[in-house]
Amino acid sequence: MNFKKDETYVLALGGLGEVGKNMYLVMHNDEIVITDAGVIFPGDELMGIDYVIPDFSFLKENESKIKGLFITHGHEDHIGGIPYLLQTVNIPAIYAPNQAVGLIKRKLEDRGIKYNNLFVYTEKNKYKYKYLSVEFFQTTHSIPDSHGICIHSPNGTIVTTGDFKFDLTPIGPMSNIHKMAKIGDEGVTLLLSDSTNALSSGFSNSESKVDEALEELFNKHNSRIIIATFASNIYRLKHIVDTCKRHGRKICVFGRSMENNIEISIEGGYIKHKDIFISPEEANRLPDNKICFLCTGSQGEPLAALSRIAGGTFRHIKLKSDDIVVFSSSTIPGNAISISRTINKLYLKGVTVYTSSSLEDIHTSGHGNEEELKLMLRLIKPKYFMPFHGEYRMLKHHADLATLCDIPKENTFVLENGDVLAIKDGVVSKAGHITADDIYVDGNRIGDVSNAVMRDRKIMANDGIVVVIANIDVKNGKLMTLPSIITRGFVQVNENIELLKKLEHISKEAINKTIKTGINYSDIKNEITNVLTSYISNQTGRKPIILPVIMDVKKNSKATTN
Amino acid sequence: MNFKKDETYVLALGGLGEVGKNMYLVMHNDEIVITDAGVIFPGDELMGIDYVIPDFSFLKENESKIKGLFITHGHEDHIGGIPYLLQTVNIPAIYAPNQAVGLIKRKLEDRGIKYNNLFVYTEKNKYKYKYLSVEFFQTTHSIPDSHGICIHSPNGTIVTTGDFKFDLTPIGPMSNIHKMAKIGDEGVTLLLSDSTNALSSGFSNSESKVDEALEELFNKHNSRIIIATFASNIYRLKHIVDTCKRHGRKICVFGRSMENNIEISIEGGYIKHKDIFISPEEANRLPDNKICFLCTGSQGEPLAALSRIAGGTFRHIKLKSDDIVVFSSSTIPGNAISISRTINKLYLKGVTVYTSSSLEDIHTSGHGNEEELKLMLRLIKPKYFMPFHGEYRMLKHHADLATLCDIPKENTFVLENGDVLAIKDGVVSKAGHITADDIYVDGNRIGDVSNAVMRDRKIMANDGIVVVIANIDVKNGKLMTLPSIITRGFVQVNENIELLKKLEHISKEAINKTIKTGINYSDIKNEITNVLTSYISNQTGRKPIILPVIMDVKKNSKATTN
Repeated sequence: MNFKKDETYVLALGGLGEVGKNMYLVMHNDEIVITDAGVIFPGDELMGIDYVIPDFSFLKENESKIKGLFITHGHEDHIGGIPYLLQTVNIPAIYAPNQAVGLIKRKLEDRGIKYNNLFVYTEKNKYKYKYLSVEFFQTTHSIPDSHGICIHSPNGTIVTTGDFKFDLTPIGPMSNIHKMAKIGDEGVTLLLSDSTNALSSGFSNSESKVDEALEELFNKHNSRIIIATFASNIYRLKHIVDTCKRHGRKICVFGRSMENNIEISIEGGYIKHKDIFISPEEANRLPDNKICFLCTGSQGEPLAALSRIAGGTFRHIKLKSDDIVVFSSSTIPGNAISISRTINKLYLKGVTVYTSSSLEDIHTSGHGNEEELKLMLRLIKPKYFMPFHGEYRMLKHHADLATLCDIPKENTFVLENGDVLAIKDGVVSKAGHITADDIYVDGNRIGDVSNAVMRDRKIMANDGIVVVIANIDVKNGKLMTLPSIITRGFVQVNENIELLKKLEHISKEAINKTIKTGINYSDIKNEITNVLTSYISNQTGRKPIILPVIMDVKKNSKATTN
Repeated sequence: MNFKKDETYVLALGGLGEVGKNMYLVMHNDEIVITDAGVIFPGDELMGIDYVIPDFSFLKENESKIKGLFITHGHEDHIGGIPYLLQTVNIPAIYAPNQAVGLIKRKLEDRGIKYNNLFVYTEKNKYKYKYLSVEFFQTTHSIPDSHGICIHSPNGTIVTTGDFKFDLTPIGPMSNIHKMAKIGDEGVTLLLSDSTNALSSGFSNSESKVDEALEELFNKHNSRIIIATFASNIYRLKHIVDTCKRHGRKICVFGRSMENNIEISIEGGYIKHKDIFISPEEANRLPDNKICFLCTGSQGEPLAALSRIAGGTFRHIKLKSDDIVVFSSSTIPGNAISISRTINKLYLKGVTVYTSSSLEDIHTSGHGNEEELKLMLRLIKPKYFMPFHGEYRMLKHHADLATLCDIPKENTFVLENGDVLAIKDGVVSKAGHITADDIYVDGNRIGDVSNAVMRDRKIMANDGIVVVIANIDVKNGKLMTLPSIITRGFVQVNENIELLKKLEHISKEAINKTIKTGINYSDIKNEITNVLTSYISNQTGRKPIILPVIMDVKKNSKATTN
């Protein structure tokens, strides 16, 4: 699309129609300001894919315009894409709040990426470019130092909330509702606001409620307490530490992401009582009422600490039947079965399990519900509204909330990644679309798993692969020997000798039939594929990949395949 | 284990520690009575597996003792295993209630299985063998003709409930609580009872509540109504038909399982108004307020009617923005993401969506909650209790409920599939264990997908396969040409030519190194596998299957592999 001079553009490379990989751009002439660079963790259907990241090609094409990347807070769906972004695009500077800087530094170190332009911002900072300027306001979320970002442009002010809730009895500092009110009073053209919990009515519970629930649990039980929670929920970790301190329990931490977050939070001063943390060996020497284990695995992730503890394969701790296991967490959609599997294993060991369904106040979300979203809309009182950070129905519902808060329906924009809004003299309109695909990361390589590769993985996952190897004497038009069949993931070989023998003979017939009329590799391969596919489907109901390999023996040629 | 003369044995081949593949046996000397033969639909981690069925090997070994298979009701988790059972074991007779007989017949016809010993039972029937005798009592569930089964043995009476709820304002007939009370009064040694909803407190909603909710919806809307529900929930289908009849709407059905169930229910007289059903063409000619579409896909199954309607790929119906879509269903754990995907697509089309979270009474479960489970325990008042039909924590909680209902804790048995209870003179004890594995059905073949095959499928699903083909002149100890690399599901080939070239050269070096000291196929293959695994892991972070194929060119030998 064409970008016009002196218009201001707003678009998302990720975060619309999904919860994750947040990345939003504001562009004016030769200036681009980026907000966040997240990843999303793919569902089971993206086999073998570790992360999905935004498509950086628009940024690559406009590299020279980039002024900086501004991070709202240190969660993976806002910072996880940074290592990949830095590998692809020259980013002159990254500005992030203190806790996020700690997490980004660790992330870059882990991957051996050197980057010297990472700076801490606070609410007091303001960054001014020729056209655009950037300032911040403190919000409340489940991690310290969360901020909303306010970008002033010649065509009007754009506010992005980042992730937020309103917690009027927060564990950390209060949201800066006065600064929000001031920004709102000065006039905001466009608000982009967090839609994660747009489908939840009312006002979310305060973290202080969780504190009370934890206190009650600790009062009630003298046995060992094992708590699983999100490693990224720093305020929850702080709670647990403070509660243990009050109750004279030491803490033993299991899980790398949990350890990282705690270390960085101690460095940042968010978590105190450094001496409360002990090793598994020390823990096992303490009486039961003096110890708390804090671990990853609240989503039933098979390799996380809690799953291994539940399965009895964790070296450092063996469950006792009077242990208490607490899930201080919610069920992320898609994880219900793995969580349930972990809980069943815990029950088998006889331990007592608390989850948010048996003890409601043991968890609260870091995202605001309907009433909090309305409060943000009322404080910022924008002329136009673009819900972000959510699946389509969340965005849609959030837009409906905005119309209840006096924003005309035609001034709300429920968009997809890549859709571009143009702002000209305070008027916002839809201007076009740029490419903003999902980019897959598998292992350490970006984007080299294409849809064709994914399709092959899916077929092999369901039905395996059948490799047919045929030696042909091309010069004399002769199949030299019975073709060989090798399979993986198809059938149990030792119980299907006859079937596999039959496949060899069918392949032989297919080849002999085809080479009668001259040798054409692709004809031979097509014929083998067709007859085997049909025979196998009839016999087994399966459709494995058929991979014919033809070798010209006499020529000592290399194998060819399709 | 040893089975003693004149003792009565009770065991599960499936249904303990899982919701599905129910199959329970009662054995006394040379008599076996089987209750149910179900399947379970596997989770995503069992790649390519269509069903899991019980292990029939104990039945095969004791084939001559089998008197009959008694079916409690016609749901897949109680009848789905029958075709596989009949292929494996000689079953002299199957007795099932009317609706189940219809479904079993259709199932056997579909698979071309001839079986002439399928009989309808009613509550009035009683089957007597030398030692064991079988009678029935009517229960309420989401399908007509659900029954509990009462088996009298020389050592005491055993009652299995099948699936049940207590609905005091049911759509079909009332549960026969008087017969249950009578059986209880006469003395029951062991009760096996449905644990599906043991974790839900209170008393489940009556189906009549759903009727009211539907009525309200139909009163409110004049646009087209599209309802997705479980095809197996016959009472729900009956509701919808009756509601449409009252409101002058015709019904168009999409989805094969839905059509089957409706046909069989019409034949059985459970659903009336046969003339209400019309074709898609007729439907599209009617005004919006005269039509209701009834379809499969309430769990977001990608190929089901509703998912295709939502995605716009369904030939017969295109969504309009004033359409109403109703999920008259719950979210089965594991399906949250696919349901959410379907709902997002529906929102994108602008339609209004009702689910049980926005309209609570639009669905109720067919299984009883805590209070109903207690009522069953009180009516049957067994001396011993074995919870069945549920995951471990459900069974455990159900056993706890039993102790609240005056059954001593030591008289409750939370067991696993294959665990055997012995009854001798009214005293129940754990007697041993027999094999009761999960048997996988992939396509039309039973049990030939071993764990090794599953492991290969998982690796290929995540990282693909790399086939290395090497021509070796064994006699002269010489690699004839550069080995060929063929991959599927590994990397996008055209963008990784260099990587693949490098793999060929590494393979060559590995082979040359190994054959220096003589040709040993397995040494060569191990060396190729080792060096490629390590190189690929370093370069890409992936661990595909490495499949080396060695060919002795001069000998025209067949390919060998490990």
